This record gives sequence, C-alpha cells and structure tokens, in this order.
Amino acid sequence: MVGNIASMCNRNEVGWQKVDWAKKRMKVISIIRKDFKKEKPLEGIRVGMAMHVEAKTAVLVETLMDGGAEVFLTGCNPLSTQDDVVDVIKNMGAHCFAKEGVNEEEYYGSLRKVASHQPNIVIDDGGDLIFVLHNMRIPECKMIFGACEETTTGITRLRAMERDGILSFPVIAVNDALTKHLFDNRYGTGQSAIDGILRATNILLAGKTVVVAGYGWCGRGIASRLSGMGANVVVTEVDEIRALEAVMDGYRVMSMEEASEIGDIFITAAGNRDVIREEHFISMKDGVVIANSGHFNVEVDIESLDRIAVARRVRENVVEYDIGGKKIYLLAEGRLVNLVAGDGHPIEIMDMSFSAQASSVKYIVENHDKLDNRVYMLPGELDRKIAELKLRSMGIKIDRLNSRQVEYLKEWRFGT
Amino acid sequence: MVGNIASMCNRNEVGWQKVDWAKKRMKVISIIRKDFKKEKPLEGIRVGMAMHVEAKTAVLVETLMDGGAEVFLTGCNPLSTQDDVVDVIKNMGAHCFAKEGVNEEEYYGSLRKVASHQPNIVIDDGGDLIFVLHNMRIPECKMIFGACEETTTGITRLRAMERDGILSFPVIAVNDALTKHLFDNRYGTGQSAIDGILRATNILLAGKTVVVAGYGWCGRGIASRLSGMGANVVVTEVDEIRALEAVMDGYRVMSMEEASEIGDIFITAAGNRDVIREEHFISMKDGVVIANSGHFNVEVDIESLDRIAVARRVRENVVEYDIGGKKIYLLAEGRLVNLVAGDGHPIEIMDMSFSAQASSVKYIVENHDKLDNRVYMLPGELDRKIAELKLRSMGIKIDRLNSRQVEYLKEWRFGT
Amino acid sequence: MVGNIASMCNRNEVGWQKVDWAKKRMKVISIIRKDFKKEKPLEGIRVGMAMHVEAKTAVLVETLMDGGAEVFLTGCNPLSTQDDVVDVIKNMGAHCFAKEGVNEEEYYGSLRKVASHQPNIVIDDGGDLIFVLHNMRIPECKMIFGACEETTTGITRLRAMERDGILSFPVIAVNDALTKHLFDNRYGTGQSAIDGILRATNILLAGKTVVVAGYGWCGRGIASRLSGMGANVVVTEVDEIRALEAVMDGYRVMSMEEASEIGDIFITAAGNRDVIREEHFISMKDGVVIANSGHFNVEVDIESLDRIAVARRVRENVVEYDIGGKKIYLLAEGRLVNLVAGDGHPIEIMDMSFSAQASSVKYIVENHDKLDNRVYMLPGELDRKIAELKLRSMGIKIDRLNSRQVEYLKEWRFGT
Amino acid sequence: MVGNIASMCNRNEVGWQKVDWAKKRMKVISIIRKDFKKEKPLEGIRVGMAMHVEAKTAVLVETLMDGGAEVFLTGCNPLSTQDDVVDVIKNMGAHCFAKEGVNEEEYYGSLRKVASHQPNIVIDDGGDLIFVLHNMRIPECKMIFGACEETTTGITRLRAMERDGILSFPVIAVNDALTKHLFDNRYGTGQSAIDGILRATNILLAGKTVVVAGYGWCGRGIASRLSGMGANVVVTEVDEIRALEAVMDGYRVMSMEEASEIGDIFITAAGNRDVIREEHFISMKDGVVIANSGHFNVEVDIESLDRIAVARRVRENVVEYDIGGKKIYLLAEGRLVNLVAGDGHPIEIMDMSFSAQASSVKYIVENHDKLDNRVYMLPGELDRKIAELKLRSMGIKIDRLNSRQVEYLKEWRFGT
Repeated sequence: MVGNIASMCNRNEVGWQKVDWAKKRMKVISIIRKDFKKEKPLEGIRVGMAMHVEAKTAVLVETLMDGGAEVFLTGCNPLSTQDDVVDVIKNMGAHCFAKEGVNEEEYYGSLRKVASHQPNIVIDDGGDLIFVLHNMRIPECKMIFGACEETTTGITRLRAMERDGILSFPVIAVNDALTKHLFDNRYGTGQSAIDGILRATNILLAGKTVVVAGYGWCGRGIASRLSGMGANVVVTEVDEIRALEAVMDGYRVMSMEEASEIGDIFITAAGNRDVIREEHFISMKDGVVIANSGHFNVEVDIESLDRIAVARRVRENVVEYDIGGKKIYLLAEGRLVNLVAGDGHPIEIMDMSFSAQASSVKYIVENHDKLDNRVYMLPGELDRKIAELKLRSMGIKIDRLNSRQVEYLKEWRFGT
Repeated sequence: MVGNIASMCNRNEVGWQKVDWAKKRMKVISIIRKDFKKEKPLEGIRVGMAMHVEAKTAVLVETLMDGGAEVFLTGCNPLSTQDDVVDVIKNMGAHCFAKEGVNEEEYYGSLRKVASHQPNIVIDDGGDLIFVLHNMRIPECKMIFGACEETTTGITRLRAMERDGILSFPVIAVNDALTKHLFDNRYGTGQSAIDGILRATNILLAGKTVVVAGYGWCGRGIASRLSGMGANVVVTEVDEIRALEAVMDGYRVMSMEEASEIGDIFITAAGNRDVIREEHFISMKDGVVIANSGHFNVEVDIESLDRIAVARRVRENVVEYDIGGKKIYLLAEGRLVNLVAGDGHPIEIMDMSFSAQASSVKYIVENHDKLDNRVYMLPGELDRKIAELKLRSMGIKIDRLNSRQVEYLKEWRFGT
Repeated sequence: MVGNIASMCNRNEVGWQKVDWAKKRMKVISIIRKDFKKEKPLEGIRVGMAMHVEAKTAVLVETLMDGGAEVFLTGCNPLSTQDDVVDVIKNMGAHCFAKEGVNEEEYYGSLRKVASHQPNIVIDDGGDLIFVLHNMRIPECKMIFGACEETTTGITRLRAMERDGILSFPVIAVNDALTKHLFDNRYGTGQSAIDGILRATNILLAGKTVVVAGYGWCGRGIASRLSGMGANVVVTEVDEIRALEAVMDGYRVMSMEEASEIGDIFITAAGNRDVIREEHFISMKDGVVIANSGHFNVEVDIESLDRIAVARRVRENVVEYDIGGKKIYLLAEGRLVNLVAGDGHPIEIMDMSFSAQASSVKYIVENHDKLDNRVYMLPGELDRKIAELKLRSMGIKIDRLNSRQVEYLKEWRFGT
Repeated sequence: MVGNIASMCNRNEVGWQKVDWAKKRMKVISIIRKDFKKEKPLEGIRVGMAMHVEAKTAVLVETLMDGGAEVFLTGCNPLSTQDDVVDVIKNMGAHCFAKEGVNEEEYYGSLRKVASHQPNIVIDDGGDLIFVLHNMRIPECKMIFGACEETTTGITRLRAMERDGILSFPVIAVNDALTKHLFDNRYGTGQSAIDGILRATNILLAGKTVVVAGYGWCGRGIASRLSGMGANVVVTEVDEIRALEAVMDGYRVMSMEEASEIGDIFITAAGNRDVIREEHFISMKDGVVIANSGHFNVEVDIESLDRIAVARRVRENVVEYDIGGKKIYLLAEGRLVNLVAGDGHPIEIMDMSFSAQASSVKYIVENHDKLDNRVYMLPGELDRKIAELKLRSMGIKIDRLNSRQVEYLKEWRFGT
C-alpha cells in the first residue's frame, strides 16, 4: 500500500512535511494570509523575530512574507529550535540564525544578528530580543515602529521597562489578547506540557501526585489536563485569590515546603525564579520527576541542584540528579518541557496566537505614529475578529443579540 | 437517642436553626463581626437592604447590627423570601418588610418602605432598590453615602445609569470583587442551580442533554457542575470569545435555535431577556424542563409561553405548559431556581460574598467624602484580605515571595 | 398566570402529583405496564413488598396491580417512607402498612403484617422481609414462588443464607442485573447522595475534603459525582483491587484512621458495620459532617457516638454530637441520606431498576417450578431487553454487528 | 552542566537507557524478580514469546531469565518493535527474532522460528503465536505446559478455539486478571492512545469531536482521558448495556453512520473488523484523523480505503487518503497507534500486567499437570497479591476488616 511511500525521508523533507501539516490546520491565519497576499500591508517592512523555531512558526514567517515583509529570525530558547524547520524557513527566503542546542553566547549572538538588521517590527517571545535591542541602543535609530510580545513572562518584563521609563518603542502585549492567553496559555500549555512529559518519560500520570507550581492561565491549564489524565493535583501559589480558586476547583493547595514531601511529579509554571529550590530538593521523595513549563529555566533552581547532586543523563531529555543515593529526574534541563521534549503547543492553538501576532504587526505598521512608548493591548475588535474566524472555521454558529436584547442591556429602568 | 429531640419544631425554631447553622459555617464574616462589635464602625448608620431573605442574609444583617447599624430589609425577588427567617430577623431587632410570594405591587411597596426610612447605606441585589430610591428622588436628600450592589445584572444596570449621568451616589460593585464573582457566581451558582433543579424535579442529570444559555461566570459554574453530574452540556452564547472557551472546555456550542431541538433541560444564565422565546418553545421536544438561574425572570419569555400554551401546576415549583399536546415544564415560574426551589448558594460561598458586602459598607462609611457618583471596585487590599481570611479559616498555608523573587518580577534585565 | 393554581395543595394532592410526575418519566416500565395490562401475567398472584415507599415505588406497585397482582406493601427503612405517597398507594387499592418515623417494633410489626398475607412473590430491599418470612416459618407453607432482592446488602445476606442452606425459596438477585447495579447503584446513588446532603446542610462541596468509605458501585458513583461538584475525594477500602482503581481514578486512598483526621465530610457506602467508629470520631476535626448511603444504619457506629458525645438536633435531618466541645454532625440519623433527606434516586434510574423488578416477578411466576432455593441472576435476555427499551425511549440508535463481524468474533483463524 | 553528558548516544546505549529507566519504575515485577532469582522456578524451562518488543518487555524477559528460563522472543505486530531494544534483549542472552517494519511473510517466519524452538511455556499477545503453534502441530509433541495470553482480542480467539475443541494446551487468560485488564486496558490504553495521537499529529484535542468506537475497558479508558483533555467524546457500541453506560458517563452515543458525519477524530477499540468502513469514509468531513487502538489492524477497513482513495505519506505515521479532494488521515497504518506512534503503555501499568504474566508462567510450570486444555483465570490470590505489592510500592495503606466486620458479612440475621 504505502510501503513504497514509507521510504526514509531526509531532514529537509521531514521539515517540509511538518510545516505543510501545520499550515493545513491553521485555518485562521490562512484567511489572514490570503488578505496579506492581496493587500501587501507589510511591503518594505523588516520584521525581526525571536521565537521557538518549529513548524507553526514557519507558517507565521510565511504569512509575514506573503504580506511583503523581509523576515530575520532566531530562536528564543537555546533548546527549542527544530533544525529541520530552520532549513525550511531558509528555503522560504527568510533569514534564520537559529540552531538547536546553542550555548548562551551563541544564543545572544544570534539575537544580536537579528537586531543588527535594524527591523521595523519586532516579534519577541520572552523579551530577550527587545532587551538586546535596547542594550545595543538600536531603538535610538528610530527604525523600530514597535514590537509584539508573545508571553506572560515577556509582558512582565516589558511592563517593568515601561515603569522604569526605559521602553523605547510601543509594544503590543499579544499575550494579553483574549484569543491568545485564554487559549494558548491554558489549553495549549495544558496539552503540550502533558505531551512533553509523556514523551520524555513514558510514565503513568493516573494516580500520581503532581504538584503544579502557579495557578495562572498556564498552571490552570496544566492542572486541568493532568486531572483529566487521572493525576491527583496539588497546587502551590503566592496569590490568595488564585489559591482559593484552585481549592474550589478541587485541588489540594499547600506551600511548596509541604508539597515537596508528597509530590511524584513537579511542574513549574509560576513565572518566577527558584520556585523549587534546595530546601525542596532535600525533602523530595526518591525518584521524583521535575519539569518546567514556564518561559525561562529559572523556576527550578538548577544551580543548587548541581551543587548538591551528581548529574547523569539517563535518557533523552532526562537527567538524573543523585543526592546521596536519592534520585531526582529533571526533564529538558529545566527548559520548557512542552517545546524541548515535544512539538510545542497544538497547531490549532498556535493558529490563534499567530493570527493575533500577524494582526498586531499589521496594526503597528498602520498606527505606529499614534502610539507612545508603552505596552498596549491588541484592540478589542481585532481580538474578537480572530475568535469569529476561528468559530467560522469550526463551522460553529452562535446567537446574536436582537434589538430588544440590545436595548435591555442598556436600559436600567427594567427591573423586577 | 435523639428521638426526644426530634419533636416537631415550630416555624420560628426552624428559622433560628437555619440561621445558627449558617452562622457557625460563615467563618470569615465571623472575624469581621468580632471587629465590628469592638469598633462599631456603623454606629448611627441606617442601612437599607434589598436581598434574598434567607438564613445567610440574616447573618449579614446581624453583622451590620453588631457594627452599630440600624437595618431596614426587604426581599429582592417576589419568591425567594423564607418566612421563617423573616421572623428571626425581626427578633434580632431589624426592620424586615419581606414576605414570600408577594405580587409586584407588594414587592415594590416593600422596597418603597425601606427607601422611605432614608438609609445612609444601601445594599442592593439586582438594582431594584436603587431604582426605587432614584424614582422617589430620595438621593436628593443627600442622606445616602453610597450603595453596594451584589449581582452582575445590577452592575450592568448601574453602569447604564452611570453612563446616562443619572447615578446619584457612589456604588461599590461588590459583584466585581474577585472574592465575590469568581466564587459566588461560579461555584455558588453551579452548586445551587443543581440543588434547586434536583429538589424541584428528582430527575436524572446523567445522560441528559442540558443547554446552558450564557457562559459568563454563572454559566460556566453551572456547565461545570452539570458536566460533573454526568450531563452532556450544550452552551449558547452571543460572545465569540466565551463561545470558544466553552468549545475548548469540551462542550458543544450552537445557537439556541439548534439547541432548542435537542435539549432535555434548559438553564438560562445570560443576564438578558427572551433568551428562550416562542420560536424555541415551538421546536422543543416533549417533556423538556426549563429553569432560570439569572437574576430576573425575563430570560425565559413566559409571556409568549402563556400565550401559546395552557398552564397547570403539576408539582411544587413545576408548572406544565401544554402546547397542543407537547409538554414543557417550567421551574420556579422562571425565577431563579437556586433560591426559589432550593436554599440558595452554599453557606461558605455567601460567607465570602457577604464579607465583601460588610467590608464595602464600612469602606463607604469611611470614604464617602472622597467618592464621586460612580461605580467603584472594592479596593484590592480589602478584596485580598477576604481571601486571606478564608484560606486561614480552612487551615491552608500558601507560599510567599522571597526577596529575590520579588526583585526578579521587577527586573527586566533577567532573561535567558 | 398560574397564581390561581398555586393554592396550597393538601397532602394527598401532593402525593398524587409526585406519583404522576414520576410515572410520566418512567418510560421503560410504562411499556412493561402496557403489556402487563393486556396479558395479566400476575392474575391471582399476591405480591408482598418491603421497599422505600415513595413516588417511584408507587409506579411499580401500580404496574404489578395492572398485571393482575394484589399488593401488600411496607417500608424497608424506618425513616424513608413518604406518608403522602402511602395515601396514594392505598387509594390505588394496594395494602400499605408503612409510616414515616416508626420505631423498630413498629417496623418489624409491619413486615410481619405483609408476611402474614402469605404472598406468592416477595420483593425485598435489604432482606428484612425475607428474614421475617423465614423467622415466621411462612416459606414452609410453600405459597412462596420466589423473591426479588433490590440491594447489594440484601444479596450479601441472601448468599449467606444460601451458603448456610437456610434459603427456602428461589431469589432473583435483581441488584445483580446489569441494568440495575451498573446504573442504580452508581449513577443513582451518586446523584441522590449529593441531593440528600445538599438539602440537609446547604454546605459547599467544592474544595471540601470528602471521605468516601467503600469503592463498590455505590461508592464510585458517589466519588465521581462529588469530584464533579469540586470536592477533593479521599477513598477508603478493604479490597486491594478497588483501592488501586480509586488511586488510578485520581483519588487519594488511605486507611480510615488517616482519613478521619483530614475529612470535612464523610460518606459511608461500604455495606459493613462500624466503618466509622469511636477511634475515628476521636480524631476528626471540629465541624465535620457524616452521612451514610449504605442500606443499613450500621456503617457509622452510632452507639459509640451516643456514648462519648452529647446529641442535639440542630436542623432537620442534622444531629450535632458534642465531644468535649468538638462538634460532629450526623445526617439522617445514619440512615441512607439519599432517601431520608432527599427524594431517593432519580426517576429515570428507578425506571430501570423497577423494570428489572417487574421482569423478575413475571419470570418467577412463569418459571418457579424449575428454580431451586438458590440465588439466581435475572436472565441476560431480560436484562438486555430493559437496556434496549431504555435506549429506544431516549431515541438513541446504536450499531449492530453485520454478518462478517459476527463471523470474525467466532473465528480464531483470523490474526495479523 | 550536563553538556558533557549530552553527547550523542548510539542506538544500543539508547536502548539500554530505555530499559534501565523502565526497570527502575517497575517495582512490582522487581519484587517478583528477586524471588525468581533466589528460587529459580523456571530452571530448564523454554519460554516462547510473541510480544511488542519495547523497553518494558525487556524487563519481563530479564525476569523470566532470572527465574532460570531460556527465552525465545519475536514481535506480535509488524510495526511495534523497537530495534534498539531488540539489541538489548539479545545482549541479555535471549533469542530475539523481531524487527521493526517487517512484512507479513517475515512476521510469520519469526513466529515459526520461536515455535520451532519447542517452548514449554508460551506468552502470546493477540494469539498469533498460539495459532502458529497449532498450525505447525507442535502441541502434539506435548512439550507445551501451557500458555499465557495478554489481550482481550487473544482471549476471544482462544475461547473460540476452546469452543471448537481445538485448543491443545491450557491457557491462562492473563488479560482477564483484575490487575491486568482493569488497569492496562483502561488507564494504560487511555494514556498511551493519547500519547500516540499527539506525537503523530500535534493537533489539539480540546474542542474536537472525537468518536470512540467500542466502550469496553479500552474504549472507556480512551473516552475518559480524551474527555479529560477537553475533547467532546462520541461513543459507538453494539452492546446496549455498554451504550447506556456511555450515555450516563456523559457522552453522546450514536451509530457510526451518524458519528461519521460529525467526528473530527476517530479511534477504534472495538475488537472487531470493519468498524469504520467505506460508507463511513464517504460521509466523513474533510481533514479527519483516524487511529486504531485495537490489537489488529482490521478495525479500520483499509482495503476499501485503498480502493476508493489515493494514499500519500505526509508525515511520520500519517498517511493522507484523498477521496476526490476530501482528505482523510490514517495514523500508524491502522495498527495500534499507542505502540507504533508512541512508547506503548506507561511503565507502571506494564509493571502490573507483566507481573501477572510472570505469576502466570510460574503457576503453569507448577500446576500444568492439573490443568485441562482450557482457558483459565489467574487464581484470585495471585491476582490480589499483585495489587497488594503495587499498593505497597506506592506507600498506600488501606483498611482491613476486623473480626466483627468479617462476621457481619457472613451473618444474614443482622438487619434493620
């Protein structure tokens, strides 16, 4: 049957297959791409990007290029680049400097390369590229119309820059678009974190005590999906309201001090450093598995782990730390397990997130004159438009308010 | 054993039992009450209230009185008053004008009675009392420091008044406090809607197709709990983002037109009129059950139901509508099934909501000089304080940020 | 509208309303009833029953009478009888000796009354009537063709009688029919236990640690629905396999000794005595709620509770036990909370269970000559017939095996 | 840090890592292995095996060898062999004839090789090896003490042989052990099917309509985990009782004819041929994904798909079928997606299943004299022992019946 088709593909072919597969399922950005192709809103625009370089990202790159942009791309994480996709992106005609498994120096070197091409628009994921641009004083050249930031972590960082009066161009907080964080951070992270952990370990989730650090959108997505796989979820938080929500959602909530003694698996999604640290490693049981799903590899304090334990790679994406005989297993070197051990977020989720990115890029190009050097939301109507397209692509029809209902919502005189 | 205790209690005794039972389990407001008793922050203050008069409300009334207030109370819904609790509240020394099963004239008459006592502080649930006060031109007397509103519906109405420039005193949107709507509207409504429907019908939820109209906080609480009881949930919405969230939460989403043909049970929580209307009744299956969980009885278009069908009460809180042989069963006359057919929200939830109310009342008394005639949020630190007390009352300890973590969140220089 | 209909109904009217409401929703037994009416398979048969006397039971009684039987009925639990339904059943022409709130002597007196009418067929629920019949040596009169038993508890008891060689007539283990225990014990008990607890207490389930004792069909139904309501479920078991299943279903499993220290609510469904006993009461937290969902009131060791604590009724169906200041709240006097504090299992569930009963009665009448004094299963084809009717009543169409598929299942030669 | 450890491993190293990783987490079989090592119960025994050759299987092989056995092993599926594990197993000293991606002739050739070594004990997975042995008339040599069968499919086949009077040696239905099918088929298949689909496709499960064909233990495991991942599950069945259970579990149930029109993803676990066939392919939507999780690749009628469509491999483990422009994507060539696209069941699950295998092998060696040529259950006490060890390995303590409770269960005189 397909035996003759099954012959080993070379790397490039595999890369193209992944990108084609993704493209076919990214229906929202396909519509945007068609418009871009016709209207060329990014003609003459240089876009500098730092993103996880995998199949869905290639579709975003292609969309931007179809809109007329010249694209300069590198990774936003030393381990999340898929080299076969890099080849594809280069073949598309974009400039790509990413490589899997780079060290810190190479990583920042590539970011500087993108920056040195003096992009008009910046698409960042975590804030490293924007940081590098500021460090290199490139914004002072005034070429930059603005930037788009993909993550909660990056937004936190950019708001700090805004507060410190450092921010040198406007930024759209793409993460804060409803069609992004409500879906990507929650359902995307929820599924892909599980995917990454299963691939890395082949362990059973059902019946395991899994500690989820952080009950933001990512954390609650992870908790929900873990629970759906039969795990017994424990949540740690620093925010009282979120902690209470986790309780009412049926999870146990406690301090990491307590949780560290009972967890079988730990997943961090707190957006902060040292969420799991020396004192916690010490009180953990033998054989526990630790993974991080937050943007940076700071949530698990690997430095202290390295200091108190002997490291040994025991399986792809699994390092064993031996603390006087007790073993702790760290996945993906503490980097986001979703992307390092898996293929990242599901395609349909990135379709929405990257549609928000493409819309933001177009918005900045058209409105940068009116924007200050601040962090902005994606305008509501653009956000809503993505949801509309997504529903339509799924064949779902929803209700519309009739005129009496619209009037009712406006009228305070209607009561009992 | 308790045989001798089991002897029939009279109505008043039952009322006290309900209130005592509630009080014992409302641990957060107990702490506030202790402070109120000592500090008397409401000394000399007249509080006018329109609320569902049941056990938990009596605990709020007592708390306000312990703080020094004189309380004037009536119902906020013609059917939700529990007469045995009215007796208790009167015995406590508050002025209570509520009665179960009043007609519209009596209902508004009681609201006018409360208004005529010229309260300094108003606590409203749905906005009817505030509406009456404005209609009676009482705000012009300037006795009113401000008001607190409990519901999403009331806030919608008050924001309309604010927009129209009509609002004559400041209002705290208690509903919008995180410790209120995230819990009361979601977990409270979720549980109590199921409670009300089960009491009214004794029907099986597992395997039923249940249509939930509206995927706001109430709607998603209801959907989640129904799903947890084995129902197959269908959601209708007018908002694209919420519709998509419902899809990703695993529910079917469609228009009410489509849903009306397949639902076994319908529950409205949309905060709008005519959510289920003639065209939908026509296409429903024989034997369906309809309940409303929204504040007003306008979500199900009862007028047209009365026009096209013959009504007959077939069971407590169940009216059968016969449309040419097909039967439709409406619960609680389309008023909120949670309170009319059940005991309303669970005690521990109202503990949080009423703690937010008590905090808001105190806040208005202390700050009304500085407030404009606008709709305000409860200040974040007061909101958070309630969550803190709640966690403490449950014996739950959560993490605190250490100094390095606080610094990390502020510092944009930390990257990969 | 229905204002004029709303006038207070007298007890008898309420009883009829409940029965009519149930009848309309019991679609499977309706079909059986139609056949019974036509074929009169029970002509001249005396049926003696001990069952929870509530609305659905009245429909079973009517079905048997429509089949030609004369029915003698009493309760199977001192607290579960609904007196308004007793009136209805008497009006139907059956002999009913049940009354709510009887003492032990009255309870057994009524059972003896049913027995003394020398029934040909016995329908029992828990085994008390069969026990009484044996004690009164009535089986020796050879009038009894056989019996049907409704519960796991009763079957355990009857198998013990069979083992001891005491059983004097054949028994159909109706409980063991697939259409009975897979649905009634699991989804029925799951929903009605929650119903009973909510009515008795109005407390919040979300976020509560609820200990479910026993992970049989009832226990897993309860655990599943509690979890669906947001509770954090802990399971106790004596069976290793069931304990492991509970673990993999995501619950914590531990000994009652450990669980007694952390539970907020305890629900027993273990089918054994002293599941919660003195040592556990001692280590419980202040304010816990205990309910039983098993057939007999022996699962919670009330005797020792009475010995170590002071009892006080604090609310309908709630007794407070004070152990040196610490309070424990026992619901429904330790009798099945589903029926004492609620309306018992949902109508549609009892439709299936009572269809199995009616089928079993007819089967015994037609086959008693061929049956030994043993415990029998309901024949598979009768069991399956009920499922077929139920699916048909819900409008659900399922697949049928085609001839190649039938052949495939029979043929061991088909492999890779 | 671990950079120096990260150096590329060769295939053999990766194989050892996988096996070591599995061994460390298979705690129950570790205990059995220790006993085997000491007692050598399989001294001089030749074990012939046909199993999925992957890491966990290697641990079973090692256990048998530690017990003294000589092991001859081949695959039980043309696509599920992991070649790096084959190397490991050979290095262990076992005879292994498996290879990934063999054609049917090679597949059966390897089975015949195992058979020709005239094993005393046979471990089979699907029944192909037992079928080959019978075909080669090897049982007539009387060397075979008995066999162990792993799957529901195999048991169906063996019971057909038993019925036809063909079975030539006793078989333990390992699949029917409680510690096997309640866990392996349900939680194992549930998790690994999702794992396989995610790896093969990177698509979003949340919000997808997923059709699960078959609601046996495998099907309900898959349905439960899919639902937990946010999918909207539709179940098809041929058995009325199972269909009703699926309904009450909250899923939609319908015929495949109806389901084929609405599904986004289809997963077969029905244990029969042609569950999805031409008529269904025709009515499917564009872009659907089909996967099989049953033992044989007959559930999806690939022949007719090949006839009506043009096949093209578009990604690893994904073949696109083009039916006049409409695309259907078949995963893993219709073979079990869990093993072909993933690493098979989670380690901890196979720990239980293979402990049941090892116990069965020992049991046959010790008892084959007393066994007839029939299909037997694993004796209950051996089954329970595995559950005990599993609970102990998880540190879980459960209750034990005290003497009064034991007595209560035996005594039919205890009633109300």
